[in-house]
Amino acid sequence: MELFRPINSYYDFENIKMVPEGDLITRNLSDMDWMYQDQEAVQELLKEDPQIYRYYNVDIPEEEGHLQHCISIINPGKVGNEYNMTKGHFHEIKGTAEIYYTIQGEGMLFMQSVTDGEPEFEALEMKKGTLSYVPPYWAHRTINTGEEPLAFIGIYPGEAGHVYGEIEAKGFMKLLIEKDGEPTIIDNPNYK
Amino acid sequence: MELFRPINSYYDFENIKMVPEGDLITRNLSDMDWMYQDQEAVQELLKEDPQIYRYYNVDIPEEEGHLQHCISIINPGKVGNEYNMTKGHFHEIKGTAEIYYTIQGEGMLFMQSVTDGEPEFEALEMKKGTLSYVPPYWAHRTINTGEEPLAFIGIYPGEAGHVYGEIEAKGFMKLLIEKDGEPTIIDNPNYK
Repeated sequence: MELFRPINSYYDFENIKMVPEGDLITRNLSDMDWMYQDQEAVQELLKEDPQIYRYYNVDIPEEEGHLQHCISIINPGKVGNEYNMTKGHFHEIKGTAEIYYTIQGEGMLFMQSVTDGEPEFEALEMKKGTLSYVPPYWAHRTINTGEEPLAFIGIYPGEAGHVYGEIEAKGFMKLLIEKDGEPTIIDNPNYK
Repeated sequence: MELFRPINSYYDFENIKMVPEGDLITRNLSDMDWMYQDQEAVQELLKEDPQIYRYYNVDIPEEEGHLQHCISIINPGKVGNEYNMTKGHFHEIKGTAEIYYTIQGEGMLFMQSVTDGEPEFEALEMKKGTLSYVPPYWAHRTINTGEEPLAFIGIYPGEAGHVYGEIEAKGFMKLLIEKDGEPTIIDNPNYK
């Protein structure tokens, strides 16, 4: 049998990136412009098309027994009154968990169940030192509510896979907006 | 189906512990006194029987799809010229990986392959911000080489399980000792 060798990756606190970079994926506003409610704000911001988030993937076999891992960074900012966020996804094998560890910054983790039953919603705070458990059968999205980049590690089973399309089309049942200067969870009026 | 709910745990930087504590397991010198080479130093230290390390386990089902996770803290110190370390283990299902993220402190991660072939050895450094990948089929032990507690997160597949007995009996093929004030890897003269 061929042994897979141990690997170290590092979080570079000064430059807010993973070293080595691995496979770097960036998401600008234009990659997810339809996901935000305030389309006037979107059109204005698209002139600059800011980067919303990026993630650095370590190259690990997509196989059972292995653990995929990456470091994600969501830039601070808002689109209208909605905070910068990831697209969100659930796993192709829905019964697989994910773990986040927040390295720095402040945010929120939105989750929505993906069973055959009625979807349920949960939210957890993220701040430096938080270890968040996303159990099997929960779609997940992360949101930066702070003034600084939100940096966190994501770890999930090698075979999990990703499904983005359904959340891209339906959205999450809740939104996180700034209201009176505070992050506030509201119902998503466009949730299908 | 019964949904498992999301959970947050926190690393308490001030008190060097996980909150909530979950299932706390402590290992004092007397739990692993035969693992160190210098038995005179062991006997002297056993009068106080210092805590070598402890870990805080989040209570997660031991099932495929789930991810076990814990925060471990190895106290600084040496037994003779050997640094404080964990007992070390491999997984009952050998083909399952583990990931460590170092929150604070300095140390080293020892690994030894557990295939049917000749065992191979690997070592990786651990320092704040290090994301270490222990692939399937590698036994692993962590060692504190610094002056402060070494705190890190460990994550592994729910079904992995643990085997301690073989390493308790055979040891690792290498030891980490302090030599001329520096951590130095040497062959283990008692490795069977």
